[in-house]
Amino acid sequence: MLAPEDDARLAELLASIERQSESFLGYPCTRDFDYSPLFPFLYYPLNNVGDPYVETTFRLNTHEIEREVLSYFQRFTHAPVADTWGYMTNGGTEGNMYGIYLARELLPEGVVYYSEDTHYSVAKILRVLHARNIMIKSLDNGEIDYLDLKETMRVHRDVPPIIFANIGTTMKGAVDDVQRIRNIIKELAIPSCYIHADAALSGMILPFVDDPQPFDFASGIDSISISGHKMIGSPVPCGVVIARKANVERIARSIEYVGTLDTTLSGSRNAITPLFMWYALHAQGEQGFRAIIKRCLEVADYAIEAFAQDGIKAWRNKNSITVVFPRPHAEILKRWQLAVHQDVAHLIAMPHVEQRHIQALLTDIRKFSGGHAAI
Amino acid sequence: MLAPEDDARLAELLASIERQSESFLGYPCTRDFDYSPLFPFLYYPLNNVGDPYVETTFRLNTHEIEREVLSYFQRFTHAPVADTWGYMTNGGTEGNMYGIYLARELLPEGVVYYSEDTHYSVAKILRVLHARNIMIKSLDNGEIDYLDLKETMRVHRDVPPIIFANIGTTMKGAVDDVQRIRNIIKELAIPSCYIHADAALSGMILPFVDDPQPFDFASGIDSISISGHKMIGSPVPCGVVIARKANVERIARSIEYVGTLDTTLSGSRNAITPLFMWYALHAQGEQGFRAIIKRCLEVADYAIEAFAQDGIKAWRNKNSITVVFPRPHAEILKRWQLAVHQDVAHLIAMPHVEQRHIQALLTDIRKFSGGHAAI
Repeated sequence: MLAPEDDARLAELLASIERQSESFLGYPCTRDFDYSPLFPFLYYPLNNVGDPYVETTFRLNTHEIEREVLSYFQRFTHAPVADTWGYMTNGGTEGNMYGIYLARELLPEGVVYYSEDTHYSVAKILRVLHARNIMIKSLDNGEIDYLDLKETMRVHRDVPPIIFANIGTTMKGAVDDVQRIRNIIKELAIPSCYIHADAALSGMILPFVDDPQPFDFASGIDSISISGHKMIGSPVPCGVVIARKANVERIARSIEYVGTLDTTLSGSRNAITPLFMWYALHAQGEQGFRAIIKRCLEVADYAIEAFAQDGIKAWRNKNSITVVFPRPHAEILKRWQLAVHQDVAHLIAMPHVEQRHIQALLTDIRKFSGGHAAI
Repeated sequence: MLAPEDDARLAELLASIERQSESFLGYPCTRDFDYSPLFPFLYYPLNNVGDPYVETTFRLNTHEIEREVLSYFQRFTHAPVADTWGYMTNGGTEGNMYGIYLARELLPEGVVYYSEDTHYSVAKILRVLHARNIMIKSLDNGEIDYLDLKETMRVHRDVPPIIFANIGTTMKGAVDDVQRIRNIIKELAIPSCYIHADAALSGMILPFVDDPQPFDFASGIDSISISGHKMIGSPVPCGVVIARKANVERIARSIEYVGTLDTTLSGSRNAITPLFMWYALHAQGEQGFRAIIKRCLEVADYAIEAFAQDGIKAWRNKNSITVVFPRPHAEILKRWQLAVHQDVAHLIAMPHVEQRHIQALLTDIRKFSGGHAAI
């Protein structure tokens, strides 16, 4: 089919990706997955178009599988099954856009509050959605500054707050305390609010630890977005969004006059990532993920100790596998694909990260700072 | 890894999909593809996050491949290479949302005009984007009613028009004449406008016919969205959006203060569908697609004749492979996965559709209408 030079080029690209995947510490995506038993599905033009709970004449879909994946996440987030609805998204951004879109429709006068540690894509979403918004300061550990939030909401008590809560910030893995935020809103006697949880990574961590911060439907959130390609792993980015059904139904009514009950943002949606997620969730089970998360946290602690032995202060937030340390040499950033923000870098102890990677990273850091690693 | 009952369930699902894909005439997705040589890439957490033209520290990407795919589509749509920009989307909806988002940012006072034959997802997009809009009547063949458009724009001459042009409507494959619309705007002496082309299916047909309707950058459009999973084929829905660079750069400046130059809507984007598209485009070449489109049009004409022999009036628009006919029995719709709208149904002569499928469909139609097919 392809010309020999095209074949060669693909082989080269694959080899380069294989190589790069060996030094892959800075992004919250595991490389521990193998979905080859599902490859036979890739010969068909599958499409999970529309609402996964609504039948369609287009039958090359995996809606049933998708609904089962959603029911896993409903369990993980203590979502009342009968009162929540969801779908699989193309990733975190779509899930966050969906949550804020819902909030804006329910509270058109609302103001979105989000911390300065929030991922840049959220500012983009707010602009796309024409949603009024105010950025709140962050604490040093990356959590939203509750005092600043309280004072700002106090000034704007006449409009309902829409809280964009980071359940694990991108850089520091900090978890905004949803319960505390709810208490502040109550103290201010603000009658209505909406809380969306961006739980891209930690949405697959907190359900599997012994003492999770309050983050889920049991703690009063209204919607949550969790990535699938991060902790579970996938060659195709994906995620789930779950929201309170009553809210989604109000949106559904408002778009029904255009002749559709499709309340998803995407329309055509891939049917493959539901299969990937279903496969991983079935293969690992809840106990499997509990063990994976435990190991990740151990590797994170190992990294902190190893850095300390080299005189580098590294740290992590509670229940976070994101290890924060001072920004190293540019060559290190490139070699280990590390994300940075100002003077801070991080590595993320995803399931594929082992002690040997940490040691190799430290060896490189030492090399680039003249014999010892302290920066 | 999986329990035996889970394995059995996947095998059953695959068999059912295989079966369903044999009677698959109503949706504009080809099943003629085989990307198995690319499956080895599916073992890695690939991600084409952000702008495909901007380097990132996350190197498990196929941005270079993506840029080459975009350059194919620039050629197909006569887009000036130096003056246009684009990215691969998750499908038509995202591409259309991007186009209207750009238009809204450039012309905040603008009104979006779109015909009543426009896909329902567009009304949803308009609501999400808070874009002022007016629906225009359609002609019987599915094109926008140019008179109604002209009279409506005349009433609203004080605000810039944003034209959402259907380059192939969903139900009838009708192409809104972009040149004619531009002439109307000129006649009304309206100084600024924006034209977005939704060329989901026909964007991969019109470049390969001898006498295409005006639809592309040479005819004055500002952005275009074309699906990848439709005519080219893909197990994962995808598309491209291409827009004038000067417009995108104005948006980029307005989001730069949030510290990103990422002008895509998605953030994380899959790196697999660029590989699929690149593979198909290289394997077929432009001549290959010319031959494919010719065959599709022949099968469409064959269908029209075969229906006529059975006394059923079927028809198609110029350069369209969508064959429109009166709505048949509900059992037929289900068995052949046909889309309907009110009293009209269609079949789409995608590359996998052969004369034998048309004959089998007609046999079924005859059976359900008591011996002869006339409805």
